[in-house]
Amino acid sequence: MQTTRLVIVGGVAAGPKAAARARRCDPRAEITILEQGEFISFAGCGLPYFIGGQIAEARELMCTPVGVVRDEAFFRNVKDIRVLTRTRAVAIDRAAKTVTARRLDSGEQIVLPYDRLVLATGSRPVRLDLPGVDLPGVYTLRGIPDALAIREALAGVTDVVVIGAGLIGLEVVDALLAVRQTRQLNVTLLERLAHPLPVLLDPEMGALVARFLKAAGVNFLPAREVRRLEGQGRVERVVTDREEIPAQLVVVGVGVRPETELAQAAGLALGPTGAIAVNEYLQTSDPDIYAGGDCVENVHLVSGQKVYLPLGSTANRHGRVIGDNIAGGRDLFPGVVGTAILKLGTLNVGRTGLTVEEARRAGFDPVSVLCAGPDRAHYHPESKPLVVKLIADRATRRLLGAQVLGAGAADKRLDVAAAALTAGFTVDRLATVDLAYAPPYATALDILTHAANTLRNKLDGRARGVSPREVRERLARGEDFVLLDVRTPKELEEARLDLPNVTWIPLGQLRSRAGELPRDKKIITFCKVSLRGYEAQLILDAEGFADVGFMEGGLAAWV
Amino acid sequence: MQTTRLVIVGGVAAGPKAAARARRCDPRAEITILEQGEFISFAGCGLPYFIGGQIAEARELMCTPVGVVRDEAFFRNVKDIRVLTRTRAVAIDRAAKTVTARRLDSGEQIVLPYDRLVLATGSRPVRLDLPGVDLPGVYTLRGIPDALAIREALAGVTDVVVIGAGLIGLEVVDALLAVRQTRQLNVTLLERLAHPLPVLLDPEMGALVARFLKAAGVNFLPAREVRRLEGQGRVERVVTDREEIPAQLVVVGVGVRPETELAQAAGLALGPTGAIAVNEYLQTSDPDIYAGGDCVENVHLVSGQKVYLPLGSTANRHGRVIGDNIAGGRDLFPGVVGTAILKLGTLNVGRTGLTVEEARRAGFDPVSVLCAGPDRAHYHPESKPLVVKLIADRATRRLLGAQVLGAGAADKRLDVAAAALTAGFTVDRLATVDLAYAPPYATALDILTHAANTLRNKLDGRARGVSPREVRERLARGEDFVLLDVRTPKELEEARLDLPNVTWIPLGQLRSRAGELPRDKKIITFCKVSLRGYEAQLILDAEGFADVGFMEGGLAAWV
Repeated sequence: MQTTRLVIVGGVAAGPKAAARARRCDPRAEITILEQGEFISFAGCGLPYFIGGQIAEARELMCTPVGVVRDEAFFRNVKDIRVLTRTRAVAIDRAAKTVTARRLDSGEQIVLPYDRLVLATGSRPVRLDLPGVDLPGVYTLRGIPDALAIREALAGVTDVVVIGAGLIGLEVVDALLAVRQTRQLNVTLLERLAHPLPVLLDPEMGALVARFLKAAGVNFLPAREVRRLEGQGRVERVVTDREEIPAQLVVVGVGVRPETELAQAAGLALGPTGAIAVNEYLQTSDPDIYAGGDCVENVHLVSGQKVYLPLGSTANRHGRVIGDNIAGGRDLFPGVVGTAILKLGTLNVGRTGLTVEEARRAGFDPVSVLCAGPDRAHYHPESKPLVVKLIADRATRRLLGAQVLGAGAADKRLDVAAAALTAGFTVDRLATVDLAYAPPYATALDILTHAANTLRNKLDGRARGVSPREVRERLARGEDFVLLDVRTPKELEEARLDLPNVTWIPLGQLRSRAGELPRDKKIITFCKVSLRGYEAQLILDAEGFADVGFMEGGLAAWV
Repeated sequence: MQTTRLVIVGGVAAGPKAAARARRCDPRAEITILEQGEFISFAGCGLPYFIGGQIAEARELMCTPVGVVRDEAFFRNVKDIRVLTRTRAVAIDRAAKTVTARRLDSGEQIVLPYDRLVLATGSRPVRLDLPGVDLPGVYTLRGIPDALAIREALAGVTDVVVIGAGLIGLEVVDALLAVRQTRQLNVTLLERLAHPLPVLLDPEMGALVARFLKAAGVNFLPAREVRRLEGQGRVERVVTDREEIPAQLVVVGVGVRPETELAQAAGLALGPTGAIAVNEYLQTSDPDIYAGGDCVENVHLVSGQKVYLPLGSTANRHGRVIGDNIAGGRDLFPGVVGTAILKLGTLNVGRTGLTVEEARRAGFDPVSVLCAGPDRAHYHPESKPLVVKLIADRATRRLLGAQVLGAGAADKRLDVAAAALTAGFTVDRLATVDLAYAPPYATALDILTHAANTLRNKLDGRARGVSPREVRERLARGEDFVLLDVRTPKELEEARLDLPNVTWIPLGQLRSRAGELPRDKKIITFCKVSLRGYEAQLILDAEGFADVGFMEGGLAAWV
């Protein structure tokens, strides 16, 4: 049997994973990884934590858990894989089945024959096409050299501007918040759209992230167009359509684009998102060329549509499937459900599945609910708050998406929702899942179960939830309605909604005092998290009030 | 329309939940809860945390999250539900559709007619039938009075013996560990079987819990028969088949039994487990009588068999379904997947689905794997270790169970596994779930994904894992085999297996030094967590060694 020659272009995540898996499946294959950078198999997702100082040495990002550097020697000795760093693949000859590469240091050109080729060329940060973006002090964050440069530049700086409130921009803000625990740092975050994480979250959840940013002392400026960056020899300020912001350091995090140049030059098909098109075996339009990681698009298992969602976890999953297949196996990658998560100071925030807007665009009729509550038994000392938003399809009751944020364990609820989305659960089925319960971990009915049940109540027409956003809109329109606060006197002392149309009747008195409320107006009830708000709605329903709803998530979700 | 009369026997978890849900579904029903104890709707699962002092006041266990006590007045004013405490239901007349109850304080007998009746009579601790169990200083833990008494008794005591290493016994140990942070306390834990949590965990996982208990300074004595409790007017010692242990306080936690007396006297059917039999609507053999919580058995969704697994979370789920149905709805409770979790000092430990033994008894052909690794990116400062055991059916590859323990976030992995079990996922499907990844939450491939992949490798015949337990057994039998340590020199300095048949070759040198190993002996490779152990097995396979396996979980799972 002849030795199979496997060539892999790209040495960060999907590439090395594919190589390692291929080696495990085929001990005789000849495996070569080409990487244009200096470092291979580094933890790109850890870069913000290096900038923030939570990780002391960049070396830690290049090491295995026991501290062995994953360098060329490591791959050769441990995995019998040849790695060529600082070597850029420049052309693919699909007829001859060769890759031409240039050694960046020597300029030498090499030609590698392949039986199967893997493209794991990754992505590159989107560059702003604006005056001043090339000034010293302006950075994007892609690789270890960027992180080293930003960390170094930070040392002498007090005014930092981050452009873009997507995942990367907010991860940089998280790093800056960590730095700011030890010294002064003015952090401004600019976003073109109306709220942070505008692609990942619905507006009401994004507004809660904005509230957190404000409380954390970040100068978050939404709906801003950056016009130019200015400075004498070095960036000194960012000019938007509304203001000038002093900045000695600017980090641009306005998204990434797939690196498709090599694939396009070789005539491989791109998909509707502009990333490399692959089938479920992760084969490109040339069956001997596979592709994975940030350079390809994925099938979204909820919408069935192609999406571009580059993530390190997906890249690793791709790598394993590709490694199997190039070594003669037949594994498949069914797709993603769009899960993403982020730590932002003490806030955990993420989503899985579709947002309301995405669900609508995908042809669903989304119904959503917002729930607030503790992440574990409220009497347990480590109990922390969470806000959960669930989205389901009205007719089929199928779960379409979940968004979770708060100081509590958001990741757990997202992961359960991701499994439920993968399984195609209805919210009814989700509510039955036998989740692990003890007071240090959850409430007897976990907040995710509770959210699913509330959404079932809403789908059944029993709970008439009104989102805090809708309440705001009604207020802005000057509508005449009653906001009924049903909290205890003690809670009222601690916080209250200072609005003229608020009426207060504690829940325990509502049955006897319902007569005090007008029968000709809409009533929207609320409490701290609106469990009692819902109860109040039901009480008033039973008392014959015709138009009662409750504000979802209560004060916990109010911004 | 006539008012429906709903009577609910039992006021802890399932009962009040059913009552509250029924009220939400039917504002006009006449709802009465009968509770023989003094307290209603208290958080029974929080009792150990009260004993441990993490919860200062017992009152917190009886309050809503905003500090309102859930007493009779609360249920009357907020929920329009009548609660009669210290009122014991003594007989059901199914023909007349009445319940007879006795007011415990006045001795008064009352008769309540019902249209639909709910039995939520709960469970009672198993009493040891031994001399001395009635001595003062010997307790079981069921309600708030028990917790108050134990907490008070603890104050003057240094030697405590806990009998039974099941969930309740270990929760009491967790409480004692908390108390011991402030003062001296000698804690002995006696268990009849060979390891802690013998019903919930496989022996190798149980052994890791035993290792933790030992490290935490608990005197864990397995395989002990308690013979008697002795003392002059008060317990002073516990006598087992092997020793005498001084004890001024003894807590007996040897399981619970369903309270079925009332149901049996009324001629209602019990199931094979001895608990009340119910259908998926949670109706007993009398369609007008429903039952839920700790007094009923459940369908296990993996085995399809009836099981008795009383838990607060299940009781709450039951309550909602019953509340729907007694108010004229038609909701169903499909069953459980056997999830349970426990905090034991810094150890989180739980399981979902079936153990290997349970799987075998249910007719499956279980294949399992043990994986160890960090719960988040190893370079993240909050990264903590976990050990994950997954079990699948050989032919169908269906996931059958998961056991997780460690200082890391075990609950998250259990919950995802519980969702996967509910969905009937194969391990292949489980490995595809798009779990939330960022370094503070998980590794790029989460340890659960990694465990699923390793089990796939094992099912495919690629990975030949040997459990640490099997290695121990081979050693005990005096078998001649090589234990190949492939860790780095630095790791070797930190910890090593002191066994004569250990050979050390770091993984990076294995390809060149394989010739040093004997070809006529079985070789079992290992590292810290056995990712490299698996790699070493593949290297030796490729070098033509005929009988190589790797030790699952590596040193992290070795006890």
